[in-house]
Amino acid sequence: MKIGVLGTGMVGSAIASKLVALGHEVRMGAREAGNEKARRWAESAGKGASAGTFADAAKFGEIVFSATLGTAALDALRAAGRENLRGKILVDVSNPLDFSKGAPPTLFTGPNDSLGERIQKELPETKVVKALNTVNAGVMGDPGRLSGESDLFVCGNDPGAKERVRALLAEFGWRSVIDLGDIAGARATEAYLLLWLRLYGALKTADFNVRVVRPGRG
Amino acid sequence: MKIGVLGTGMVGSAIASKLVALGHEVRMGAREAGNEKARRWAESAGKGASAGTFADAAKFGEIVFSATLGTAALDALRAAGRENLRGKILVDVSNPLDFSKGAPPTLFTGPNDSLGERIQKELPETKVVKALNTVNAGVMGDPGRLSGESDLFVCGNDPGAKERVRALLAEFGWRSVIDLGDIAGARATEAYLLLWLRLYGALKTADFNVRVVRPGRG
Repeated sequence: MKIGVLGTGMVGSAIASKLVALGHEVRMGAREAGNEKARRWAESAGKGASAGTFADAAKFGEIVFSATLGTAALDALRAAGRENLRGKILVDVSNPLDFSKGAPPTLFTGPNDSLGERIQKELPETKVVKALNTVNAGVMGDPGRLSGESDLFVCGNDPGAKERVRALLAEFGWRSVIDLGDIAGARATEAYLLLWLRLYGALKTADFNVRVVRPGRG
Repeated sequence: MKIGVLGTGMVGSAIASKLVALGHEVRMGAREAGNEKARRWAESAGKGASAGTFADAAKFGEIVFSATLGTAALDALRAAGRENLRGKILVDVSNPLDFSKGAPPTLFTGPNDSLGERIQKELPETKVVKALNTVNAGVMGDPGRLSGESDLFVCGNDPGAKERVRALLAEFGWRSVIDLGDIAGARATEAYLLLWLRLYGALKTADFNVRVVRPGRG
């Protein structure tokens, strides 16, 4: 599959590299053409990897990942171009974290609001699926590094889009993906970041995830 | 131990009954003396159970549980009386859920605020420990009903108070309790309710909890 990845940071690189390793053709998009990090990634990631602008990557992908910083997400998507994302699936991995007052970051959205919903509103003709934002870049493409199985969450307004993303996540190694409903579920998985950050502080590692434990399911 | 429980709803009753079953003396507190639900609970819960006002319960307890609705918590604690809670441990189980616009509820606190912090600010001479608010009343006192082990979170400003609460939670059956740091950690466990509510919708049961999965720990 042809996939666009918007963002050149740890998250964008981890997702793009995993997709290339799985045999997909991946174009990483950056704000400017010739962006140093995107160019270096494309050179090192091997066959199927290329780099361009946000618009280049959005146009290239059948599915596009939004993996910039949360504060930059809406600007990046506007630069990517509504027409280049029309009718496509956009996997939103970003979190509304505000580091402007130092660490730990706060959320720049209210509790009854989310970045996922803002993005869906900005791109009404794109099928936004929120996913992967609840785990660290290292865990995203390698859930097996954790000693036990854990759960990933997806939400979005289009059931078919969620099924396609679920299939892609299965390629990543995610065997348990819980559908939380419509895109307003992003309020839940983004707010969970506050717990993630506290757990990160308590456990002194970002290598963790949660498993939902129920009666009859360990 | 003598323990006060503020609140006569499902959560207050579940905690109070569990404590009585464990052999503690428990006074359930309600807004008014002679409250029907508190009286009936005290009659049915057996030896060691009694009922009174919020102030009666606060005065009675060496440790006090705040288990009213979140919207009522601060008023209930004011009625309980700052002097009756001075120097004591207050286990805050409440969540800032606003049901005024119907279900699902929203949070009435901002993302960088929490009910736990508001309560600690209201009662500066009380050791507030946030705990048990991330699980349903049925799971609180019976974590073994889930098929696998799961985690509970505590936070608060006083390490000694957290240790005493941890010991009490161990009596409840909680073997894994993660300390998330100071009372501002309540932002994390209260915001997690948004995920809890979506999971409740997806799983069609309130009988669940999360397990933190890491490398080397299933």
